[in-house]
Amino acid sequence: MSQFDNVTVMTKANVYFDGHCVSHAIILADGTRKTLGVILPSTLTFTTQAAEIMEITAGHCRVLLAGSDTWTDYRDGSSFDVPANSSFEIETLETLDYICHFA
Amino acid sequence: MSQFDNVTVMTKANVYFDGHCVSHAIILADGTRKTLGVILPSTLTFTTQAAEIMEITAGHCRVLLAGSDTWTDYRDGSSFDVPANSSFEIETLETLDYICHFA
Repeated sequence: MSQFDNVTVMTKANVYFDGHCVSHAIILADGTRKTLGVILPSTLTFTTQAAEIMEITAGHCRVLLAGSDTWTDYRDGSSFDVPANSSFEIETLETLDYICHFA
Repeated sequence: MSQFDNVTVMTKANVYFDGHCVSHAIILADGTRKTLGVILPSTLTFTTQAAEIMEITAGHCRVLLAGSDTWTDYRDGSSFDVPANSSFEIETLETLDYICHFA
């Protein structure tokens, strides 16, 4: 997915972790909310409220989900699911572009 | 302007200056292209091809346009014009959100 058409986009970004993660929120025509973001090379821990699907559209990372002892690699074209009220560690090896879908 | 409605948004960001500037491009219904971006605290030199209007929607910066000897402060709600094929130095004091309009 290289673009989303017919969306509302928020002009102000969400900036986390001293700017290592920057995202813009979009709202699709059917009301679905997603965020489009970038994660710079770093190792960060994200927490979730809603369940989410992180779709990686560029770059390379390794992810450790809470409760798992296995790091998994993700690159352009792959995605991973994170439960609600959970967390994951993400080691970004090459700057990521991602789409965060809320389940 | 807190949001743009009925736009196309590119999912991959533009990342400049080691991530100190991250932007997403949007295309309005009439075909007009803009970028929505963030600049982290830094001093950077941007060059322009097309003329642009930089609208600051959050944060605080000082700007020195090419050929000028006067730094000017910009904050939420202000904007500055940059000619085509020119440049400007920008010292970002508080993380900026901006909308870049192409003239």
